Amino acid sequence: MPDPSASTEEMDRLFQPRSRLLAMAAFEAALAAASAEAVVVPKAAAAVIADVCASESFDADEIFAAQRLAGNPAIPFVRQLTERVGRRDADAAAWVHFGATSQDVIDSATMLLARDALAILGRDLQRLRDVLALLAAREAETPMVGRTLLQQAIPISLGFKLAGWLAGLDRAAAGLAELTDCALALQFGGPVGTLAAFGEDGPAVAEKLAAHLGLPCPAFSWHTERSRIAEIGAWLGIATGLLGKIAGDIILAMQTELAELGEPAAAGKGGSSAMPHKRNPVMTLFAVAAATRTPHLVGALFACLAQAHERGAGAWHAEWPLLPQLFGHAHAATLAVLDTIEGLEIDPAAMARNLEATRGLIYAERLTAAMIPHLGRSEAHRLVEAWCREAVAGDRPLADIAESHRARQVPALTAEELRDAFDPADQIAAAARAVEAMLRQRE
Amino acid sequence: MPDPSASTEEMDRLFQPRSRLLAMAAFEAALAAASAEAVVVPKAAAAVIADVCASESFDADEIFAAQRLAGNPAIPFVRQLTERVGRRDADAAAWVHFGATSQDVIDSATMLLARDALAILGRDLQRLRDVLALLAAREAETPMVGRTLLQQAIPISLGFKLAGWLAGLDRAAAGLAELTDCALALQFGGPVGTLAAFGEDGPAVAEKLAAHLGLPCPAFSWHTERSRIAEIGAWLGIATGLLGKIAGDIILAMQTELAELGEPAAAGKGGSSAMPHKRNPVMTLFAVAAATRTPHLVGALFACLAQAHERGAGAWHAEWPLLPQLFGHAHAATLAVLDTIEGLEIDPAAMARNLEATRGLIYAERLTAAMIPHLGRSEAHRLVEAWCREAVAGDRPLADIAESHRARQVPALTAEELRDAFDPADQIAAAARAVEAMLRQRE
Amino acid sequence: MPDPSASTEEMDRLFQPRSRLLAMAAFEAALAAASAEAVVVPKAAAAVIADVCASESFDADEIFAAQRLAGNPAIPFVRQLTERVGRRDADAAAWVHFGATSQDVIDSATMLLARDALAILGRDLQRLRDVLALLAAREAETPMVGRTLLQQAIPISLGFKLAGWLAGLDRAAAGLAELTDCALALQFGGPVGTLAAFGEDGPAVAEKLAAHLGLPCPAFSWHTERSRIAEIGAWLGIATGLLGKIAGDIILAMQTELAELGEPAAAGKGGSSAMPHKRNPVMTLFAVAAATRTPHLVGALFACLAQAHERGAGAWHAEWPLLPQLFGHAHAATLAVLDTIEGLEIDPAAMARNLEATRGLIYAERLTAAMIPHLGRSEAHRLVEAWCREAVAGDRPLADIAESHRARQVPALTAEELRDAFDPADQIAAAARAVEAMLRQRE
Amino acid sequence: MPDPSASTEEMDRLFQPRSRLLAMAAFEAALAAASAEAVVVPKAAAAVIADVCASESFDADEIFAAQRLAGNPAIPFVRQLTERVGRRDADAAAWVHFGATSQDVIDSATMLLARDALAILGRDLQRLRDVLALLAAREAETPMVGRTLLQQAIPISLGFKLAGWLAGLDRAAAGLAELTDCALALQFGGPVGTLAAFGEDGPAVAEKLAAHLGLPCPAFSWHTERSRIAEIGAWLGIATGLLGKIAGDIILAMQTELAELGEPAAAGKGGSSAMPHKRNPVMTLFAVAAATRTPHLVGALFACLAQAHERGAGAWHAEWPLLPQLFGHAHAATLAVLDTIEGLEIDPAAMARNLEATRGLIYAERLTAAMIPHLGRSEAHRLVEAWCREAVAGDRPLADIAESHRARQVPALTAEELRDAFDPADQIAAAARAVEAMLRQRE
Repeated sequence: MPDPSASTEEMDRLFQPRSRLLAMAAFEAALAAASAEAVVVPKAAAAVIADVCASESFDADEIFAAQRLAGNPAIPFVRQLTERVGRRDADAAAWVHFGATSQDVIDSATMLLARDALAILGRDLQRLRDVLALLAAREAETPMVGRTLLQQAIPISLGFKLAGWLAGLDRAAAGLAELTDCALALQFGGPVGTLAAFGEDGPAVAEKLAAHLGLPCPAFSWHTERSRIAEIGAWLGIATGLLGKIAGDIILAMQTELAELGEPAAAGKGGSSAMPHKRNPVMTLFAVAAATRTPHLVGALFACLAQAHERGAGAWHAEWPLLPQLFGHAHAATLAVLDTIEGLEIDPAAMARNLEATRGLIYAERLTAAMIPHLGRSEAHRLVEAWCREAVAGDRPLADIAESHRARQVPALTAEELRDAFDPADQIAAAARAVEAMLRQRE
Repeated sequence: MPDPSASTEEMDRLFQPRSRLLAMAAFEAALAAASAEAVVVPKAAAAVIADVCASESFDADEIFAAQRLAGNPAIPFVRQLTERVGRRDADAAAWVHFGATSQDVIDSATMLLARDALAILGRDLQRLRDVLALLAAREAETPMVGRTLLQQAIPISLGFKLAGWLAGLDRAAAGLAELTDCALALQFGGPVGTLAAFGEDGPAVAEKLAAHLGLPCPAFSWHTERSRIAEIGAWLGIATGLLGKIAGDIILAMQTELAELGEPAAAGKGGSSAMPHKRNPVMTLFAVAAATRTPHLVGALFACLAQAHERGAGAWHAEWPLLPQLFGHAHAATLAVLDTIEGLEIDPAAMARNLEATRGLIYAERLTAAMIPHLGRSEAHRLVEAWCREAVAGDRPLADIAESHRARQVPALTAEELRDAFDPADQIAAAARAVEAMLRQRE
Repeated sequence: MPDPSASTEEMDRLFQPRSRLLAMAAFEAALAAASAEAVVVPKAAAAVIADVCASESFDADEIFAAQRLAGNPAIPFVRQLTERVGRRDADAAAWVHFGATSQDVIDSATMLLARDALAILGRDLQRLRDVLALLAAREAETPMVGRTLLQQAIPISLGFKLAGWLAGLDRAAAGLAELTDCALALQFGGPVGTLAAFGEDGPAVAEKLAAHLGLPCPAFSWHTERSRIAEIGAWLGIATGLLGKIAGDIILAMQTELAELGEPAAAGKGGSSAMPHKRNPVMTLFAVAAATRTPHLVGALFACLAQAHERGAGAWHAEWPLLPQLFGHAHAATLAVLDTIEGLEIDPAAMARNLEATRGLIYAERLTAAMIPHLGRSEAHRLVEAWCREAVAGDRPLADIAESHRARQVPALTAEELRDAFDPADQIAAAARAVEAMLRQRE
Repeated sequence: MPDPSASTEEMDRLFQPRSRLLAMAAFEAALAAASAEAVVVPKAAAAVIADVCASESFDADEIFAAQRLAGNPAIPFVRQLTERVGRRDADAAAWVHFGATSQDVIDSATMLLARDALAILGRDLQRLRDVLALLAAREAETPMVGRTLLQQAIPISLGFKLAGWLAGLDRAAAGLAELTDCALALQFGGPVGTLAAFGEDGPAVAEKLAAHLGLPCPAFSWHTERSRIAEIGAWLGIATGLLGKIAGDIILAMQTELAELGEPAAAGKGGSSAMPHKRNPVMTLFAVAAATRTPHLVGALFACLAQAHERGAGAWHAEWPLLPQLFGHAHAATLAVLDTIEGLEIDPAAMARNLEATRGLIYAERLTAAMIPHLGRSEAHRLVEAWCREAVAGDRPLADIAESHRARQVPALTAEELRDAFDPADQIAAAARAVEAMLRQRE
């Protein structure tokens, strides 16, 4: 069933059978052209092949049905292509797919699709990063409580939290650029990777073919050296994981008892079939679902690194759906988080209220720090702990307890120093400073 | 793209959106009927609901598109159902989905589909086990070499290898029966699992509903207790793994240099786009590809065990595609192995030839055993090792080397004893005995 | 570094090298005894072997260092055993390990250790289930809010939540019993599984050996049929996952803003190095960490199902540490949750306070239900939604809003009916009923 | 039990508890020094702290036992450190760990250890790549058959296979350099990442601290932004996978029936406990075992990307053992493959013999190509297929069959052209060319 956590319309379209055949046709056309340039294949034959590749519509149903017997879709595709070329020019048909092997077509087509898919992700991550950067700047001083181990710790600002999300996505964007430069590559080696059919012209054809397709020409054919595929998969897994962390934080912040953030409202969105009052997370759930599955898809792809000899006997085949699935998950998570962040509902009042939930206990550390110069560390620690217990037991503000004991127990501590300890301004300022430095650095 | 290792037509059909809606409709119809029997819902309303569920065709596209906003497909489905019931009888519409929650519908529908999917797998595993049992009996005494760590060890029979495969599938079949009894269950608890809307009638409605659907009524609602789902997934992963082991053994046995077994030939099957002479494995590759991915699908499903409070926030959603995918992989592997075994090409001559590949070294252990009574263990070991080295160095049969040294070095060993050591008859007999015992036990 | 989420002292002790050698020695002693009973091995030799196995202390360091070259620990172990037997009786040394192969010793030893490990887990799960059953009964009517998708839904009781946890562990306990009956088995087949060295006596020796060790004698040797190992791993993964779900729920309930449950306090426990006021979750974190890793350990074990021919070339070796690791994780999670539950801090006041957090919105569904008889479903729904909006906008209790509109908008609804809609007593009763039914059923 | 596939002595030593404490002490010493330089901490106090960190031996047993209650090892470590500093200078004790949080210490220590571990791997991968480059050059023209889908395809050279392995490891080495530059980073943020305790001096202290430790200072604290850890894990997984592919190829080539390559012989290595004649793979098995597990360890690490708010509640803890385990597996695989390659036994005669196994069928494609100019593609294809069938049926060399039909069926084909088709020289030359180009490019 269609699954909003597993793919998007755009990725579905990109990886649909017809698109894959178009990419395979692009490879065969480019191969013919490159071979003609290298004077391996007659120019006239190459022209016919390129023309058929560009103009014909291939029968995807037949091709993908035939792979059950053929073992891969390239064999029936080349058969269909050869037949169609042959109808126009019998001689040209002899040059279709010349010197190549099924895996050359399939892997190169995968790389062409991966290039487009990475571009899509890069574009949408850019949008998300732009929105996050704006929001982080805007909310750099909006107080909220920082939480560690799901316990309230000390104050941060909302902008600080957003900047932390952004920092991860900035690294992902840098990784994507690196990937586009280093992991994409032409696959071209013929049956066992040696380009034997081309004699001494092999390297020249390879370089021209790579140029035609706009893919880097690798140092060696990589039929069973799958680190490129694994690297792309790893990046997708990490990117989706970072998005899942953002979505997870939002879901936690949406909890009824916190209610600090909310997914954007929309008619019919997030309702419950049984509970009319609920406003459930929706898009963030799908992002979390995507991020729950991707580590395992990455693991599966890594398990495919073990490909035997000059072509994998099963491990190559196991790869096929995994990369498109990972792209689908990454894009689904990207759009889910983008939509959420673009319309993010922020409740500063709730954040302020939650800052008060402990009645000042979250300032205990600062209070201790303020007292250390007067009492030494361990005595300051001991006293504050006692006051904390007293505040909890009596359900009273820690500041009141502290003030009530100050004169007698820490006479050197001034009332103003005590008040300062319970004022989060410095902590918010530190958070804002971190946000500002981070945003400045990325300009 | 369609992937012969990831699913089959039958499983695709079973888990397609329309089938899922039919199962969801079956739940709603049964819920209405059960509620009417428990006098919670008016009989007339229940009749209308049941009739609409049985006769109407739901708009799958609309429903599955709407889940992006709704958060799950049950909400738009119930909306569509309510609307259609309402067109016939406004009062009845008020009773649609009464007391239930989205997860009740979705999980119960999953269980109904899982029951059918398990039945399909049971049926096809049975066919495979029947063929394997026949073949194992027939080939119980066909000599072949046993291989450990991919090295030739000592003789077995082909039937022994087949019986080993069968033993695993017999355990899987027993597990499937266990699973059908214990892991399938109605899901029914309402919003938080308490059936609160039904007051004291909850348990009665649940039992009647379970009876209508033919699913066991569990001791407790399992909205966030997902061991049943994990158990089904684990079984599917194990079954696919066992099939992958069989496929892997066949691929190894098909290696050009071994050529003991072959996939059944078929027009256009297993050809290479570049090498006309090759007869490649095809179906077994897809089975191996399935088995390469399933451990990770199982891992993903296990990661979904951590579902928060009374309904998982993402982990439940992450589950959705995984079980159908696991069923698809398991069935794809079953049919691939079934087709392979039904037409398995067996070359007893190749097996006999390979038994000779070491020129007798695989009998070294037996030779040692024959000499121990005369020389003691360590001396026998030492001598045989020396003879083995001599045989390897001179590329001569070990039997000849042994015979040449026998009179001088082990005079107590008779020529007949020596000949016996190189006769695999006893070893084949031991293999055949194991096959026979195993087949007898399963009758 | 020692990791409280990865193992326990008891499991470390059980799977330490010395324990493993003891289990291997138990196998060799039993093999000698069984072979002597079957008149395959001289009684005197068997007696010496058994005595050495029982009395000698093997050099674990030497044995486990030697496996780097030998390929497995059985080879140097058997060498050491043979040497020690030989020092007492040269003839007996010839019968050490007679007819067996390394994998027989290693797999059977694994099964002996697994049997003990399962017993430990069964014992501690029993303790946990006992505590949970008592607590669930005691807290069956303690009101708390049910939460779906991390949003407040409708009331449940604390006992209901506890019973849900217990239901999963009860299923796990049933699975453990099943596993102990069906998955444990003797491994015994000799080099390729045929017991060829024993001639016709093979089956008899196998049965006697199984009886000596108290392990079931399987229908077939399972050197490369690893479903038993995978099943044990799957059970461990599911059990740990269920424990992780419990721990995760507790961590969520410990959030500062919820503060409904707490880990038992202890000196020095859960403090923060920087924040003296915090009381962090500790044991539950380790349980969650265990449950985060186990799906991947299970996946790895399932990936080992693909073992080639008659002995796996790497996949068998990959298995070795995985089962002990899974046992370690499962036991660590069990003890972490057991300790937590035994001293679980429960704050009914906090639960009651949280029930009020939405100011009555969580009763919207009940209010709707009460109004449906008077207004029809859709009108009731529409009105309640409007009232909810009004309540949220004005930050007022929904009950007040409803009462203010009742007379004019739903005159047929009595004030008492309205009050009832906001009284969770029925919902708590439903939860308590489910608890009671579940506890009764398990008696 | 010690497991040669899971770690090495050097990695065990690097990640042992004591080494981890030394790295943590290095962090605290550098923090004190950096804080003193920034005039946040008194110089004298910093000097005492640094001295204690450098000279004292911490009680690892106590610290790692205490983490069960404390929740992490940093808390008891800082306690122990503070106590020891306090014994020398009570004032200095107040400044221990000032402004930092447990996760700062632990994550930074992990990064220091990771840096050393990456250096070890880089060093040993370099050794392996050097040996492979030499071997690839030496064996660039040694004929062997290329195999796809485990079927013989067309000739390659041994050097070509080795160069393919090397190509993967070269990419891994480039990735390692990238990783060392980009993924290593100081962790330093205090309780929630804001460095609040340092006021405006935070960034300055961070930079000085980074400089002291020789770690890059990141743009933002990464307490819950774990992409760096995931990237290191991914690289380790890919590197181990590439090593597993090499090991797997060698195991396949060691099969009795192929016998082209062998692990280096050593006394007591690879023997069978039951079969004196066997020479089993050993080190390659452990490398394959490592590569079988690593995809799942990577998956587990990726699952830890989802860390809540400002500190993960379980997911951070789940990470701890995974990175050391991945380093252990990667190094174990590196050394296993290095040892194997350094002493690799190569049997050119066996490779030549296997090239003849199909009696010329592997030249069918070349024969077809030679005939296409004379007959057109489809007729050439048809004829060669017929001849192949005849060769197989009669167990005769394809060259003989072809010659017998040449004059009548393809009169235009000269005897010399036919002979050339069966001469692999061109194919070997193409393979050698690819090797040479690849080796030249990496100079």
